[in-house]
Amino acid sequence: MQPTDRRLANAIRALAMDAVEAANSGHPGMPMGMADAATALFTRHLKFHAADPRWPDRDRFVLSAGHGSMLIYALLYLTGYERPTLDDIKRFRQLGSPCAGHPENFELPGVEVTTGPLGQGVAMAVGMAIAERHLNATYCDDLVDHRTFVIAGDGCLMEGVNHEAVGLAGHLKLGRLIVLWDDNSITIDGSTELSRNEDVVARHRASQWHVCECDGLSADDVSRAIEEALADPRPSLIRCKTIIGYGAPNKQGTAATHGAALGKDEVAAARKELGLDDEPFSVPDDVLTAWRAAGKRGGIEHALWSERLEASGRKDEFLHRLNGQVSDAWLKPYLDKLLLDLKPVATRKASEMALEAINAAIPATIGGSADLTGSNNTKTRNIEPLTPENYGGRYIYYGIREFGMSAAMNGMALHGGVIPYGGTFLVFTDYARPAIRLSALQKARVVYVMTHDSIGLGEDGPTHQPIEHLQSLRAMPQLEVFRPADAVETAECWALALQREGPSILALTRQNLRPVRTEAAAENLSARGAYRLKSSENNRQAIIVATGSEVEIALDAAERLEVQGIGTDVVSMPCTDRFDAQPWDYREDILPDVSNREILRVSIEAGATFGWERYVGLHGLKIGIDRFGVSAPAADAYEHFGLTPDKVATRIIDFMKQRGF
Amino acid sequence: MQPTDRRLANAIRALAMDAVEAANSGHPGMPMGMADAATALFTRHLKFHAADPRWPDRDRFVLSAGHGSMLIYALLYLTGYERPTLDDIKRFRQLGSPCAGHPENFELPGVEVTTGPLGQGVAMAVGMAIAERHLNATYCDDLVDHRTFVIAGDGCLMEGVNHEAVGLAGHLKLGRLIVLWDDNSITIDGSTELSRNEDVVARHRASQWHVCECDGLSADDVSRAIEEALADPRPSLIRCKTIIGYGAPNKQGTAATHGAALGKDEVAAARKELGLDDEPFSVPDDVLTAWRAAGKRGGIEHALWSERLEASGRKDEFLHRLNGQVSDAWLKPYLDKLLLDLKPVATRKASEMALEAINAAIPATIGGSADLTGSNNTKTRNIEPLTPENYGGRYIYYGIREFGMSAAMNGMALHGGVIPYGGTFLVFTDYARPAIRLSALQKARVVYVMTHDSIGLGEDGPTHQPIEHLQSLRAMPQLEVFRPADAVETAECWALALQREGPSILALTRQNLRPVRTEAAAENLSARGAYRLKSSENNRQAIIVATGSEVEIALDAAERLEVQGIGTDVVSMPCTDRFDAQPWDYREDILPDVSNREILRVSIEAGATFGWERYVGLHGLKIGIDRFGVSAPAADAYEHFGLTPDKVATRIIDFMKQRGF
Repeated sequence: MQPTDRRLANAIRALAMDAVEAANSGHPGMPMGMADAATALFTRHLKFHAADPRWPDRDRFVLSAGHGSMLIYALLYLTGYERPTLDDIKRFRQLGSPCAGHPENFELPGVEVTTGPLGQGVAMAVGMAIAERHLNATYCDDLVDHRTFVIAGDGCLMEGVNHEAVGLAGHLKLGRLIVLWDDNSITIDGSTELSRNEDVVARHRASQWHVCECDGLSADDVSRAIEEALADPRPSLIRCKTIIGYGAPNKQGTAATHGAALGKDEVAAARKELGLDDEPFSVPDDVLTAWRAAGKRGGIEHALWSERLEASGRKDEFLHRLNGQVSDAWLKPYLDKLLLDLKPVATRKASEMALEAINAAIPATIGGSADLTGSNNTKTRNIEPLTPENYGGRYIYYGIREFGMSAAMNGMALHGGVIPYGGTFLVFTDYARPAIRLSALQKARVVYVMTHDSIGLGEDGPTHQPIEHLQSLRAMPQLEVFRPADAVETAECWALALQREGPSILALTRQNLRPVRTEAAAENLSARGAYRLKSSENNRQAIIVATGSEVEIALDAAERLEVQGIGTDVVSMPCTDRFDAQPWDYREDILPDVSNREILRVSIEAGATFGWERYVGLHGLKIGIDRFGVSAPAADAYEHFGLTPDKVATRIIDFMKQRGF
Repeated sequence: MQPTDRRLANAIRALAMDAVEAANSGHPGMPMGMADAATALFTRHLKFHAADPRWPDRDRFVLSAGHGSMLIYALLYLTGYERPTLDDIKRFRQLGSPCAGHPENFELPGVEVTTGPLGQGVAMAVGMAIAERHLNATYCDDLVDHRTFVIAGDGCLMEGVNHEAVGLAGHLKLGRLIVLWDDNSITIDGSTELSRNEDVVARHRASQWHVCECDGLSADDVSRAIEEALADPRPSLIRCKTIIGYGAPNKQGTAATHGAALGKDEVAAARKELGLDDEPFSVPDDVLTAWRAAGKRGGIEHALWSERLEASGRKDEFLHRLNGQVSDAWLKPYLDKLLLDLKPVATRKASEMALEAINAAIPATIGGSADLTGSNNTKTRNIEPLTPENYGGRYIYYGIREFGMSAAMNGMALHGGVIPYGGTFLVFTDYARPAIRLSALQKARVVYVMTHDSIGLGEDGPTHQPIEHLQSLRAMPQLEVFRPADAVETAECWALALQREGPSILALTRQNLRPVRTEAAAENLSARGAYRLKSSENNRQAIIVATGSEVEIALDAAERLEVQGIGTDVVSMPCTDRFDAQPWDYREDILPDVSNREILRVSIEAGATFGWERYVGLHGLKIGIDRFGVSAPAADAYEHFGLTPDKVATRIIDFMKQRGF
């Protein structure tokens, strides 16, 4: 006899309780409250095949309320994924277990995205739903025809990014996105009434969502609601009324079950309440059998899909696309042509020029901007807007939603088959920063096109002028920050960003820059992160390291120094991380570690000098800006902060005299 | 004869057009579209007195759509504020003019807050409205009885933080908050339909706001709507239907008027359309007279209020409170008592202990947390929740709204009379970062209580473990980051944070730390940013600089080194910025600049090593974590990353051998 849904759900509850108890750390409340809803979803609706977690046409499931990680670990184990094993679960939250505190996509196939930072799961799911519709428009129903399901809690729904994600999904009419809201009336601090009196349903309806409600503790009722949502053409919010920690007789319905082990006595009481064995981590045979069968539900669909793929005539292309490999064959012809007609150009414009070639050569790119299209130069002439009427378009007007855009791009990248890039001003990486961090942690290939990258943006003033941003982003692991100096470097950096596994930031100027790279190179010089752009003519006494718009200032200052007999190298450093990763001898060649008074090292960057000691040492000269900017035309601002060739040259000479060089 | 409202409004339009034209940069569209609404507000409703811009009981006006800065510059000039002068306006967006690209509170009295980064104006206004109700509860209607008005555009309303701000305002029933929405159907990229299909009115109603609509181009109709909003006990959104760039006959209603000068011809056409003189920057006498009279409208109320203040018997106390001076008289008795009974304690708990004394001694503090009260230890027993039923309370349950909380705290601090502090996890400074930057730029005294400040939080794993955060925050100008090592340093840092003009971040541990400061000191040792905690016993060969939880590891490692005959100083560095600001001789005493092989400098911090070259040089040893964290119990995580006394000591010895020390 098939076990009841409740017994299936109780297997989730038991594993969640037991794992948290064993770790003496974790969040049992959410998995216990949503166990019935998850059972309905995984045993009746979700299209998946545990034996092939990377099946391109699987439904995507996102646990936005990532603290309830035991829910997904239990589901993956029960439905028969290769990992986690029961032993993995027993080592929940321990060093080396793939069952980390919060679900991490790089630990377990089946965990589609890394969640925990609240609100971002829903926003990434929006990106997945966009990618699905786009690929569907490209490859049609035979190959791409799936849904994105989300479980989200009150935390996810209260975060600001939720507003952006809900707005974007409503606007793009992403009817294949279904969010199950764990409406348990509890947050960490206590009742949701402590901090919210919003009508969540009305808010979603205001954003053109379909909303329906159900008893989240009844798998049948949840299933009915899912059917309703599936039938509706709009994105859906399913309000699942639940009780947090359901099954723990004395603690359920309280914040006490949210983020701590229930305790031995309460676990024992819950076992009794739920009709479970006394043995921790045990799953009754009939229950496990039923779950394993559920994990194979999708087998037939999987097989039919594989047949359709074979028959499509597009198998190689499709899989190649999904694999995400891209060629940089566009680069050389582009550079060859560029070098024929060099002129001063802002790197944001140079980025657009490169993108024309990239978008023509690489069909997987999807561009966009958070309402700064004309400023970020992100829309090339050869791509059309992606709209509800044309999901095949490749440009998204994200609206004034920097965070929502960035999180959606993470979802798109992790869905696979598309390479998202999107723009805003560099200063507003602050708005997007939580998503940028998740790009890095998840190694999502997202290219952030961040223009107006210094005081060089001019009149908009301190609120819009990045100062600390470059350095604060360089401090982030697994993220590469590129700040190219001219059109050639911009193209090189684009090529590197598209090739890498992980996110990149392109920091680009508003103002025109003169070409500093005027000859063809045998290799992508930006790939090493830094290289000698100009060698000293006189005896080398100084090395100036500069990035982006300050490279031309460095060249002009060096010229003035050479006139004075001070031999000066100029090093362009478009990517500090890449330089740091070079072998010692390369780094030593570019920035030799000589004793203090032999060669002065100087850095120039129109931003915080914090951290530039790494390249110039304690006795070097850091030229930059360690205060907020000013509202003034760009040239005046540069003059004001001493960032002109004359002022830089004078400062270097004075410094050398003072320090006895 | 009194000039018509439209003529008054056209003076704003003219100044906006002319200033942008002169600068050839700026945003004429918004001021031209909202000129009539602003005229209604400033001539009929807003309580202000241009002669006393700092009148504590003035209504607060926030231009959330800060790019329309010429609107407020025009209003301040027309109503007779001392600055800006007409010359200031003629130098709009030029170096040294207080009329910066975006309005900056530190440039002009009358500009209440710095805006431009979208959405934050509304959120800061929420904080101002909270402060008003709180002070009203404390000082009653006689002294505190004012409103907060906002002008916001579609950008502000689309940003995620708007959701948080609107939710918070609805929840706290801030009926004295009135937002005028410039509903012009245009964003930078074009029609709002490109990116939004939300029913904005319904969304606000869902958050328990009052909403009314009006013709934003009719001062009378706007005034009627404001009356309706004033009469309603809920926060109000007034939907002002407007036309962007109204008055520019060929460009109005298009994105072309948003962010660029109209051009000579269009300005001429607009002059004709609006019935204006040909002379730029000219205001007809009767119009200026009428505006100046409006600037004195509040004179009688101002005088009556001053009389009430005199008669209140609380004048000194009230003004002292509004001035924001606080004493640190609480510190010494607190420390004396603390030193009597030292035991291991997490610095988050030490913060709570200090806060008990602070909240008792300083009535201006208002605490809170973004739904992590029990984790951030921000609620002391001696303060009650601030709720619609008790605005006199001093603790706010902000909900899962880190950004909204932080922006609201900025508004509270800038309103004056209160000192806000609020908590979340350090990793989620990412969510709050745009507001933290505005705290710094505006020098708002906000104390960010950021707990769980490293991998020491343990099992929650990489999504919750800050790595790059400390360094990325230290790179920000005008922000001080404190990372205390024990309970004594925590209290010292709290005292410094409360005293300073500007924001502070307290980075605090989840895990217990043993006391490292066990004796009374004559001064606040943390004030210098770093100090020698332990002097070498043997001949000094190493200096270990550490912060927070790593100080005890440094001490223990030093002990091991001393046993080996390696004399080792330990320097505790709770605040790098403060250390950097010390005179050379102090810094030289603590971290002498000796040549490479004499004394090894070592830094230990459980986070990114990026930037620590500033203190250890190129030949020092940086011990930290340059990758994302791990989910594991804290002790295991520390062991995993080599952050134990044994591993640190071994690493230092090996390094010294290798490098020939």
